[in-house]
Amino acid sequence: MKILVTGFDPFGGDKINPAIEAVKLLPDKVKGAEIIKLEIPTVFNKCAEVVKAAIKKYQPDYVLNVGQAGGRYALTPERIAINIDDGRIPDNDGYQPLGEAIHEDGETAYFTQLPIKAEAKAIREAGIPAEVSNTAGTYVCNHIMYQVQYMRDKEFPNIKAGFIHIPFLPEQVVNRPGVASMSLDDIVKGLTAALGAIVERDGQGDLVAVEGKTH
Amino acid sequence: MKILVTGFDPFGGDKINPAIEAVKLLPDKVKGAEIIKLEIPTVFNKCAEVVKAAIKKYQPDYVLNVGQAGGRYALTPERIAINIDDGRIPDNDGYQPLGEAIHEDGETAYFTQLPIKAEAKAIREAGIPAEVSNTAGTYVCNHIMYQVQYMRDKEFPNIKAGFIHIPFLPEQVVNRPGVASMSLDDIVKGLTAALGAIVERDGQGDLVAVEGKTH
Amino acid sequence: MKILVTGFDPFGGDKINPAIEAVKLLPDKVKGAEIIKLEIPTVFNKCAEVVKAAIKKYQPDYVLNVGQAGGRYALTPERIAINIDDGRIPDNDGYQPLGEAIHEDGETAYFTQLPIKAEAKAIREAGIPAEVSNTAGTYVCNHIMYQVQYMRDKEFPNIKAGFIHIPFLPEQVVNRPGVASMSLDDIVKGLTAALGAIVERDGQGDLVAVEGKTH
Amino acid sequence: MKILVTGFDPFGGDKINPAIEAVKLLPDKVKGAEIIKLEIPTVFNKCAEVVKAAIKKYQPDYVLNVGQAGGRYALTPERIAINIDDGRIPDNDGYQPLGEAIHEDGETAYFTQLPIKAEAKAIREAGIPAEVSNTAGTYVCNHIMYQVQYMRDKEFPNIKAGFIHIPFLPEQVVNRPGVASMSLDDIVKGLTAALGAIVERDGQGDLVAVEGKTH
Repeated sequence: MKILVTGFDPFGGDKINPAIEAVKLLPDKVKGAEIIKLEIPTVFNKCAEVVKAAIKKYQPDYVLNVGQAGGRYALTPERIAINIDDGRIPDNDGYQPLGEAIHEDGETAYFTQLPIKAEAKAIREAGIPAEVSNTAGTYVCNHIMYQVQYMRDKEFPNIKAGFIHIPFLPEQVVNRPGVASMSLDDIVKGLTAALGAIVERDGQGDLVAVEGKTH
Repeated sequence: MKILVTGFDPFGGDKINPAIEAVKLLPDKVKGAEIIKLEIPTVFNKCAEVVKAAIKKYQPDYVLNVGQAGGRYALTPERIAINIDDGRIPDNDGYQPLGEAIHEDGETAYFTQLPIKAEAKAIREAGIPAEVSNTAGTYVCNHIMYQVQYMRDKEFPNIKAGFIHIPFLPEQVVNRPGVASMSLDDIVKGLTAALGAIVERDGQGDLVAVEGKTH
Repeated sequence: MKILVTGFDPFGGDKINPAIEAVKLLPDKVKGAEIIKLEIPTVFNKCAEVVKAAIKKYQPDYVLNVGQAGGRYALTPERIAINIDDGRIPDNDGYQPLGEAIHEDGETAYFTQLPIKAEAKAIREAGIPAEVSNTAGTYVCNHIMYQVQYMRDKEFPNIKAGFIHIPFLPEQVVNRPGVASMSLDDIVKGLTAALGAIVERDGQGDLVAVEGKTH
Repeated sequence: MKILVTGFDPFGGDKINPAIEAVKLLPDKVKGAEIIKLEIPTVFNKCAEVVKAAIKKYQPDYVLNVGQAGGRYALTPERIAINIDDGRIPDNDGYQPLGEAIHEDGETAYFTQLPIKAEAKAIREAGIPAEVSNTAGTYVCNHIMYQVQYMRDKEFPNIKAGFIHIPFLPEQVVNRPGVASMSLDDIVKGLTAALGAIVERDGQGDLVAVEGKTH
């Protein structure tokens, strides 16, 4: 089994992005699955081209995109990607879409094929906080999650794909009082646990468990 | 123009639900539009039957569902409803779905037809905090928002519909330290401003403005 | 019985200070006690001169200073004032002390004589969130609380004095996402309840009740 | 130079206390100073006896008490200890004082002799979030900070003493959604940086810098 794991480069004034830093530190094998690591640009559309080329090259069974969600307290496997680009800030190429569809011929949204409840449970069992999230936002993170689902819908039907958001690193919140963070080691430990859950649940779907939100 | 506005009854151990309390206090007319007020039960599916009967009876141009999002700091017009019931707690009939589709033949998600950026702007101009939200959760609030969209998709194509989440009332956080709240008067003022924006933007779609989230 | 209640004027870029706005709206009598209302400047030392002149003029039995604590969720009667001026920002006269004693011959700190647990309980019983706080900060709020205690220590031994911090108003957080607020009506209602508790506990000291913090 | 560093044992239902875990992992020497490590019980008064015996035995130049402040986002050197025991929960011996003085003949409060602004700056320069705090609470943490100051006042005038509060560990927030945490490695790194600042500022007092709070 092959799992392509991507991480974004830094954006929005930060000099570091924990996503790519964590991805680089993942083990090369998790429970027998080969982990292929890929840095992608924080740029609408361009990030999707990079992922598409890697899918063609490596033909992975799974794609897991990883991105920073500054302010979150936990690792958060994402449930759904939605067909909208609505940037609070411009991307690294200076492009800031405001409420545009990603693909006119795409679904309104796609649910992940990854076992998000199993991932969250495995991360917590590794001693790292985790919660299922129901929004990946409307910026580049949701964009790449949607784009990979769209590719799956149109071109690579055998791929299973999803997204995990991760918190800021401690060094990123030194000048952001009252904002949560997580150490790089713990992010790596949590992502590794999530990858383990993906491998173990292969072919079985997700757990049935209480992980929902009242809002 | 007629706008049907619904509010849920109390759930989850609270004796009061600010949603129905606020809806009851809305004016009967907003910028010329007639406001029809409806209490609905915090029960999966049953709430949709009640709304459907009211749509048939009143034939509104717009439907706005209002629900409590305990812990939020602002009024939050919702962008999207997703095809999943995943309850953190049972509903008022004791039913707790865990990850089930609302309608097998429904879309994965539906975007609201309401002008959410215009609503948020109007609420803020009334002096009340507001933000566009990208998740209505996976409980009864998302459920009713999805159900009304599904009815629109299948049966009432001329309706425009959407959802606004509102915070706890101050009296609800007296024993919940560190949780935000908003007074009933301010919720009513904010909802009235949002209804005004809906009327004013009728036929023009939403504003193009920065309201997105990086996650 | 006479209670002198003070509120600060706006500072730090805000055009309004809920402290003086709320104080102005207090009733003239609370449970038989006369309420004397006084606006004071957000200026180190100068605010104390204004209060001192009012104490001499009105000879109140109690002094209650009210100030804004942006970011708090509840009304917070303060337990203690400490002998330090350490400004995160300059005051309204441009003065920014950094770690200086308020009075070289003053105590390190003074506990309030007000019944803070009774105040918090009364506020909550009025449906408004309240918690005892153990820090009034190191800016003008702590300064005036300390100054009045110092006056009591040196000059007006019969006065009982204390402080209540109040949250931002909703209009102040319209552009501060994720920050709690409280309506002016609710602040007035809560302060009135606290004044009632002060009058009722006169001569009896505070309640013995669980209100402490582990940190 | 000798620095006695203490950490509390677990309390309040947690099986682990990051305070003693971090203290155990500190280096034996920091910038030439000898670090003496001591576990103390989360019990009013008893913790003070243990520290007093260690002061007599080791004759340290500095005492640094370390305690957990669940919910904080950063390491927080404490400015002041106050003369009150007011427990939100009982201590590990089941004792829950409610608003009692620690020592009738003690000062109302004692400022730390440690360079808290220099500590916070050094911790941040090590990449770990830190802020000066103005309240150590009213439970066992404030108690031991006060007790050591009282010993200094009455018996060991040459000692300089203070306190640092630390966040929950990630494993402690796995079932506490929306609560910040910090890894044990980062806590150790931050405490080591703070100890370095204590050694370097020895004899010079604290930095003059902006670290104050408006409330």
